[in-house]
Amino acid sequence: MSFFRISDLKEVEIVPGFKGRFIHSANTTLAYWRMDKGGVIPVHTHVHEMIVNVIEGTLELTIDKETQTMTGGMAAIIPSNVPHTAKAITDCFVLDVFHPVREDYKAKSS
Amino acid sequence: MSFFRISDLKEVEIVPGFKGRFIHSANTTLAYWRMDKGGVIPVHTHVHEMIVNVIEGTLELTIDKETQTMTGGMAAIIPSNVPHTAKAITDCFVLDVFHPVREDYKAKSS
Repeated sequence: MSFFRISDLKEVEIVPGFKGRFIHSANTTLAYWRMDKGGVIPVHTHVHEMIVNVIEGTLELTIDKETQTMTGGMAAIIPSNVPHTAKAITDCFVLDVFHPVREDYKAKSS
Repeated sequence: MSFFRISDLKEVEIVPGFKGRFIHSANTTLAYWRMDKGGVIPVHTHVHEMIVNVIEGTLELTIDKETQTMTGGMAAIIPSNVPHTAKAITDCFVLDVFHPVREDYKAKSS
């Protein structure tokens, strides 16, 4: 299938307060997150490079030593293996782009 | 720089009616398009695989032989080298994800 309505995709709660829907191309994964206010993703790293897009809401994102408060219309690049953490200051809708494919998300959402 | 406000980035009119802003990670390019109603991207192909995300507006997208009318909250996957064309039925805001990096867009927007 080539076309998707995101709201039709299976939603999976990956971390408490972080519910995601996923699309996978051959080399990228897109994660559409609904984040509950107050939800925190602990510091972690992964080999996947990542671009965070805040569509709605306010997200506090820390990449390595730099913290910024992101609002709708902001984006951030997280290179491969760089530690990062995030906190939802309000309810958020966020689109994350990963390369390569997040096989772990694919397994959890299939 | 890791953090961006998309509206601060240089906007480039790539095709008449299709104005884009671009972020490039090591392996992906994100293109944030403001498309004018009636704008058409002629049929073309590229080696880059692509995921189209309609954020706002109505976009008629044809991938190979399949045409769908996409609205906000819809996405579509275009594999490498598959012909595609698009028409903005209304003014649109669309986020395209490419892999690998669109070096042509990088050159035009730098």
